[in-house]
Amino acid sequence: MLHVLVLHGPNLNMVGSREPSLYGKTSLKAINAAISKWAKEQGVRADIRQSNAEGDLVTWIQEARGHFDAIVINPAGYTHTSVAIRDAIAAAAVPTVEVHLTNIHAREEFRHRSLTAGVALGQIAGFGPHSYLLAMQAVVQHLDSRKAS
Amino acid sequence: MLHVLVLHGPNLNMVGSREPSLYGKTSLKAINAAISKWAKEQGVRADIRQSNAEGDLVTWIQEARGHFDAIVINPAGYTHTSVAIRDAIAAAAVPTVEVHLTNIHAREEFRHRSLTAGVALGQIAGFGPHSYLLAMQAVVQHLDSRKAS
Amino acid sequence: MLHVLVLHGPNLNMVGSREPSLYGKTSLKAINAAISKWAKEQGVRADIRQSNAEGDLVTWIQEARGHFDAIVINPAGYTHTSVAIRDAIAAAAVPTVEVHLTNIHAREEFRHRSLTAGVALGQIAGFGPHSYLLAMQAVVQHLDSRKAS
Amino acid sequence: MLHVLVLHGPNLNMVGSREPSLYGKTSLKAINAAISKWAKEQGVRADIRQSNAEGDLVTWIQEARGHFDAIVINPAGYTHTSVAIRDAIAAAAVPTVEVHLTNIHAREEFRHRSLTAGVALGQIAGFGPHSYLLAMQAVVQHLDSRKAS
Amino acid sequence: MLHVLVLHGPNLNMVGSREPSLYGKTSLKAINAAISKWAKEQGVRADIRQSNAEGDLVTWIQEARGHFDAIVINPAGYTHTSVAIRDAIAAAAVPTVEVHLTNIHAREEFRHRSLTAGVALGQIAGFGPHSYLLAMQAVVQHLDSRKAS
Amino acid sequence: MLHVLVLHGPNLNMVGSREPSLYGKTSLKAINAAISKWAKEQGVRADIRQSNAEGDLVTWIQEARGHFDAIVINPAGYTHTSVAIRDAIAAAAVPTVEVHLTNIHAREEFRHRSLTAGVALGQIAGFGPHSYLLAMQAVVQHLDSRKAS
Amino acid sequence: MLHVLVLHGPNLNMVGSREPSLYGKTSLKAINAAISKWAKEQGVRADIRQSNAEGDLVTWIQEARGHFDAIVINPAGYTHTSVAIRDAIAAAAVPTVEVHLTNIHAREEFRHRSLTAGVALGQIAGFGPHSYLLAMQAVVQHLDSRKAS
Amino acid sequence: MLHVLVLHGPNLNMVGSREPSLYGKTSLKAINAAISKWAKEQGVRADIRQSNAEGDLVTWIQEARGHFDAIVINPAGYTHTSVAIRDAIAAAAVPTVEVHLTNIHAREEFRHRSLTAGVALGQIAGFGPHSYLLAMQAVVQHLDSRKAS
Amino acid sequence: MLHVLVLHGPNLNMVGSREPSLYGKTSLKAINAAISKWAKEQGVRADIRQSNAEGDLVTWIQEARGHFDAIVINPAGYTHTSVAIRDAIAAAAVPTVEVHLTNIHAREEFRHRSLTAGVALGQIAGFGPHSYLLAMQAVVQHLDSRKAS
Amino acid sequence: MLHVLVLHGPNLNMVGSREPSLYGKTSLKAINAAISKWAKEQGVRADIRQSNAEGDLVTWIQEARGHFDAIVINPAGYTHTSVAIRDAIAAAAVPTVEVHLTNIHAREEFRHRSLTAGVALGQIAGFGPHSYLLAMQAVVQHLDSRKAS
Amino acid sequence: MLHVLVLHGPNLNMVGSREPSLYGKTSLKAINAAISKWAKEQGVRADIRQSNAEGDLVTWIQEARGHFDAIVINPAGYTHTSVAIRDAIAAAAVPTVEVHLTNIHAREEFRHRSLTAGVALGQIAGFGPHSYLLAMQAVVQHLDSRKAS
Amino acid sequence: MLHVLVLHGPNLNMVGSREPSLYGKTSLKAINAAISKWAKEQGVRADIRQSNAEGDLVTWIQEARGHFDAIVINPAGYTHTSVAIRDAIAAAAVPTVEVHLTNIHAREEFRHRSLTAGVALGQIAGFGPHSYLLAMQAVVQHLDSRKAS
Repeated sequence: MLHVLVLHGPNLNMVGSREPSLYGKTSLKAINAAISKWAKEQGVRADIRQSNAEGDLVTWIQEARGHFDAIVINPAGYTHTSVAIRDAIAAAAVPTVEVHLTNIHAREEFRHRSLTAGVALGQIAGFGPHSYLLAMQAVVQHLDSRKAS
Repeated sequence: MLHVLVLHGPNLNMVGSREPSLYGKTSLKAINAAISKWAKEQGVRADIRQSNAEGDLVTWIQEARGHFDAIVINPAGYTHTSVAIRDAIAAAAVPTVEVHLTNIHAREEFRHRSLTAGVALGQIAGFGPHSYLLAMQAVVQHLDSRKAS
Repeated sequence: MLHVLVLHGPNLNMVGSREPSLYGKTSLKAINAAISKWAKEQGVRADIRQSNAEGDLVTWIQEARGHFDAIVINPAGYTHTSVAIRDAIAAAAVPTVEVHLTNIHAREEFRHRSLTAGVALGQIAGFGPHSYLLAMQAVVQHLDSRKAS
Repeated sequence: MLHVLVLHGPNLNMVGSREPSLYGKTSLKAINAAISKWAKEQGVRADIRQSNAEGDLVTWIQEARGHFDAIVINPAGYTHTSVAIRDAIAAAAVPTVEVHLTNIHAREEFRHRSLTAGVALGQIAGFGPHSYLLAMQAVVQHLDSRKAS
Repeated sequence: MLHVLVLHGPNLNMVGSREPSLYGKTSLKAINAAISKWAKEQGVRADIRQSNAEGDLVTWIQEARGHFDAIVINPAGYTHTSVAIRDAIAAAAVPTVEVHLTNIHAREEFRHRSLTAGVALGQIAGFGPHSYLLAMQAVVQHLDSRKAS
Repeated sequence: MLHVLVLHGPNLNMVGSREPSLYGKTSLKAINAAISKWAKEQGVRADIRQSNAEGDLVTWIQEARGHFDAIVINPAGYTHTSVAIRDAIAAAAVPTVEVHLTNIHAREEFRHRSLTAGVALGQIAGFGPHSYLLAMQAVVQHLDSRKAS
Repeated sequence: MLHVLVLHGPNLNMVGSREPSLYGKTSLKAINAAISKWAKEQGVRADIRQSNAEGDLVTWIQEARGHFDAIVINPAGYTHTSVAIRDAIAAAAVPTVEVHLTNIHAREEFRHRSLTAGVALGQIAGFGPHSYLLAMQAVVQHLDSRKAS
Repeated sequence: MLHVLVLHGPNLNMVGSREPSLYGKTSLKAINAAISKWAKEQGVRADIRQSNAEGDLVTWIQEARGHFDAIVINPAGYTHTSVAIRDAIAAAAVPTVEVHLTNIHAREEFRHRSLTAGVALGQIAGFGPHSYLLAMQAVVQHLDSRKAS
Repeated sequence: MLHVLVLHGPNLNMVGSREPSLYGKTSLKAINAAISKWAKEQGVRADIRQSNAEGDLVTWIQEARGHFDAIVINPAGYTHTSVAIRDAIAAAAVPTVEVHLTNIHAREEFRHRSLTAGVALGQIAGFGPHSYLLAMQAVVQHLDSRKAS
Repeated sequence: MLHVLVLHGPNLNMVGSREPSLYGKTSLKAINAAISKWAKEQGVRADIRQSNAEGDLVTWIQEARGHFDAIVINPAGYTHTSVAIRDAIAAAAVPTVEVHLTNIHAREEFRHRSLTAGVALGQIAGFGPHSYLLAMQAVVQHLDSRKAS
Repeated sequence: MLHVLVLHGPNLNMVGSREPSLYGKTSLKAINAAISKWAKEQGVRADIRQSNAEGDLVTWIQEARGHFDAIVINPAGYTHTSVAIRDAIAAAAVPTVEVHLTNIHAREEFRHRSLTAGVALGQIAGFGPHSYLLAMQAVVQHLDSRKAS
Repeated sequence: MLHVLVLHGPNLNMVGSREPSLYGKTSLKAINAAISKWAKEQGVRADIRQSNAEGDLVTWIQEARGHFDAIVINPAGYTHTSVAIRDAIAAAAVPTVEVHLTNIHAREEFRHRSLTAGVALGQIAGFGPHSYLLAMQAVVQHLDSRKAS
């Protein structure tokens, strides 16, 4: 059974009420429920956490090593500024997918650069809550194909 | 029944033999077969085309208007340089998802910027051939949720 | 009798239906009719072409040499990225006016720079379809004054 | 009857004698005569002023509000450096066309950027004295089409 | 009765002893006393907190939603680097004033850019401890005028 | 009795009618009345002037030396482009506060940099007409505390 | 017998008549004759093509794989803008030499950067038509030495 | 007896297992043991802490004031992004040496700039665990020479 | 007899009292007296003017045409920002020497670039009031050698 | 008989042993022998020198004037940093070809810019020792064609 | 017995008298004596040289190959501008440590970038003469650990 | 009696024959004679040297300390690239004037920045050989006024 660590970065606990025209009306609770439901259906164990603190995210990523098969992370505001999270992903050496609710490439200039995507498997951005399910699927498919080869 | 136009940009016809350590060993034919299979299963009609010419891609995107419900496009090398394709996507006003086989954010600096993603729904990069299936799913889910609301 | 080659770049075939709040509601057909009408009234022969392909525009510009007295071109998306079109204008050595429907100087940063204007007589931007008639007039007046001197 | 304010920025009083290979041999007096003649023929009232002072231009643009239907301005050297003139055009909210004798896009790098064009209807550059007549026509046509709609 | 959340960012707990020639000799305790005294006199409730952790500031800003009428924040070192705090201010949608003890525009280049001011009502910088009282007054005045209109 | 010179830069004479959604509906006359009223109440003499000319502002700042205890200035469009005003403030060596009606840090990129703030005591931006009263208060408080020490 | 594909990019069909002071007076026909003559003498088969279209160049480069031992290409205006041609050269994995008639390092700033040279064996620029013969020789010598080792 | 505070930034708790080809195979525990051993031999008290949280590092640096004679810090990923840690070092005014296991000047571009080194005594980078012992020695020697003068 | 126009830009009327550690203690009156004395001794007529207004400087430079043999100008703060003054110098086509009291190359970054020096004969910076006498001598020597050749 | 000066810049004396995977295994002695052999066969006199000192290269280039018909130079590390060598080439006014063993356009960013190529006839890069022979041939052919015309 | 080559770059012969507040009061002679003393104590042979010429440093570095086990170099002013020295270090392939008396990261912007550190083992900066002893120790420790493994 | 060291940088030995339209027709010998004649007349001893080597210039500047009252230097090509010469000027602490034959501010972009002027008294550029006499005079006047005060 695959274990996936799902990490939500800063302000994602506000989703649903926060700028709904931008981030949608679905709450984080609902997003998490959808992830859990999908995971259950696929026979995957998903462990979901959220923090506003860069250090928490760094620590959780580190702890994934040896305990999780993959990480799905939305680093939110830290995407564009955190060398520490980038280094943690590289250090953990656990396959990681970067997720964004919004299409960061269509927003302010400073959101176009991702420091963390450079050490991830890939990036999925712009599909609202569905981005997470796509990322879950991407990472599971990646692990399956790796096992196969 | 949803109609999706799948467009492959320059050099994607070489996939499989082209730099396999970077782009993988699956041929474009096999990728297209996987897309078609997925589409069939989902009751979606997928029309797939490839061209090395920027103008062809522009024209096909334009023609999608009124004939397709969505576009899934891998603009390949034109991603970073084509205002014309960007303008075509904006002009067609058909929901569009940008796809990349590789994680462009982990490659050369000049591949980090996407001119086309700014007018797309979102971007999926880094999952090899599976990127296309994720994009198909993303766009179908987007159309469904739009219909629902 | 003066012969003017009028060239429309990529996506201009979509004008009228394409983002009307930006580009207006007049179709390319109507724009062309207005150009032809104006030309006829002025005793000028206008040959009008549109292409989405950079290579077509390059070739048409080259062919203008010896066959046309002037070129009026809206390079659209290629304005900002095409050294090839710039080189073609310089190579053809036919007086050329650059035209834009919208005021490119009031849009996205990447539209402020024109690679092609540097080898043109001048640039007219922001007056919708009327931009073309102003350009026709500018180029005819330029040829007249050159003949006079 | 339409009232158009025509403003010449710094050094335009020198035109004719100033660097004739660049700016031509027509004096400002002759340019103004041509503008007045054109205006008379079209039933338009043109009020023409020149100043070397940024503040004068700012004040005249402000005063256009309520007294003129349009402004045709050649901000000359202030084009590239004046936020104050830009703000005045935005504040006056009178349709404004920016004019240049030379093709500023083919000159020094620092002349390629226009701070003022971003709040104008459009820009016409490179046609010598004829640039003004094209601008007059552009603005009159703009006002006519606005009245019509 | 208005409720204002006053947030001090990293190192502000050191004010008074820290580089007094730059930040002055007044301690944070004294600054807070002055804020409280002013608030009391104006019939405003001020809740004051300090943290060196970016995550704490993000969380406190989020919690202001629905519990405070306004935020006065000195993000200190995070001003120039924190997309997370910027996003929190936007998410909370509570009127926010940014405050600085020193005139950041007269210091190192990297302190001239504020990532957070872009989503604030405004910024007050350079008046030492008095900056906070000006900000309190600015935000109270803002709320009053909003209520009035 | 303290003497404060209040200077309004270009286009501020248009405030009230100029882009009210951006600058508010209060006229400069009303703003000046509020400043005068506040000054009278505080026993301060405020001398208020407006000019669209950079040179006038430079001259007035110079003349403040020896005649005024402080300057409150809104350099408006000159904020971002005037080395001359910056040098005048440094030359006059009179404590100066920079004021802006709008939050310049939330507007176009070119408004984020202030050439003049580097030689001012501080900057207050974003509180509409109230910015001036905050600045008056800031400068009076500054002079008082200086006298005290 | 070695097979070399010689590709001329946009506007090279104009050489001889096009800006002769820059590109010389030798026509493309004469350049091609010289290449063919040299090839014949060396016992090399040279296949020569020209196109103004980026897509054609991409396709021809791809087709070189398995059919040609080397490519000599003058990408002309696409040198500085085409990621697609760069990717085609990398994909074809056929030894490629980049050629320029003029010394691009002594021309406009935007011609100093070559996107394509980064995946070529090397670059030869500045020797007019002779550049092609040098490139032919360079690539033949390269293949010989590779065979030898 | 000298008291030195040794601080390890984010991800240093992973050293040994984390990317050993880059960071070496010595664990943090072993590094700390070496530091302690060295300190004991030199009659220095070393207090060693690690945190992934920027705020913890800021707080610990502040607390060094009055309790430690010097700080040896490896800010790791925060080196390049943390104004808060820079400000803390300046605020604490305790002699500080910056340490890096790897030669940051030979890695990615974004690691070449150190925000924190600008307020440190100096920087030692590239000698693996030995970097810490060199830094200990550097700071002790600095304190000795200061006492001597 | 040679006629030289000496122009002082903004804030130079403050010299002597203005930041004496930077600009020296000699008043503008004394500087002018020295220039006049030198001119008299050399049989040169020097006409000296000062203005804080960019427009005045532009007009005076224009008027030099036909009335003066040379211009010696210290554009002060306008050196770095005025395209208008640059254009006036080019338009007047009178030999012009740029002068600075201070060594602008040793001051803030934004003072290193001179927009006006590009159209001057040369620049003399850093010698206090003596800079003017050196410039007078440079321009007289230039005119003499021109006459001689 | 043509006289060609061949100059090797810094570190080329190390070629053969120096980083052979990058620069090849042929020693400078062997390269020079090949150049001499080629020259002899062509009836050309080649004078070959190497220095690690920028000043030596400058002096040798200067001395070429009147004594050599052409220069072939590999400025090595000075290519990217030496205005002095650039000026020497321009001063000597002897036709000069720039040579590189490696394809500098495919290496570190700072090797992409050549300060010296801007005053050379052209540049040949990437063909190992053969680059020199190509350059010899290029320069001889250039001199022949110049003599012919 | 280990042989270390210690190289001092330009102006280090002036240390002691040169800007003592920046570089300290210890003369180069005294620094060298300290290095020699340390070396003797450690059973290391240190060969120390100084030159103001870039070419000398390049040559000495080259000569280290096969004759020295390590290099300790303070490239001084050449640190930021010399590709030639960088290439020499890479060519010599002798373990090299870069040393600076001052903390270059705390000085002018142009001193923050080191071209040479990218090919060194590491960099030590900011500890005055002691920097050299730390570097000696670093390189000896490096060689010891390499021998051990 | 004042002793002035006059230093000519690289390629100045070519002046007179080198690009005369740019640098004039006066030889270095003639320039030196003019300097010597002027010096003799003023009772100043001038020692004049030229070198193409950066290291020679560095050494000569160092040696000026204690032996010369001032330096007049034309660093030529090293002006824009030499931190070593800049450091030498700062180390020597002898008043230094930078001289250029041409107006470097009117030439290529890379000649606009002077690394050395930042530590000089001032800069004189654009007056051909006369620049040296102006510099001699500037430095003598500087020394006189310093003695006087």
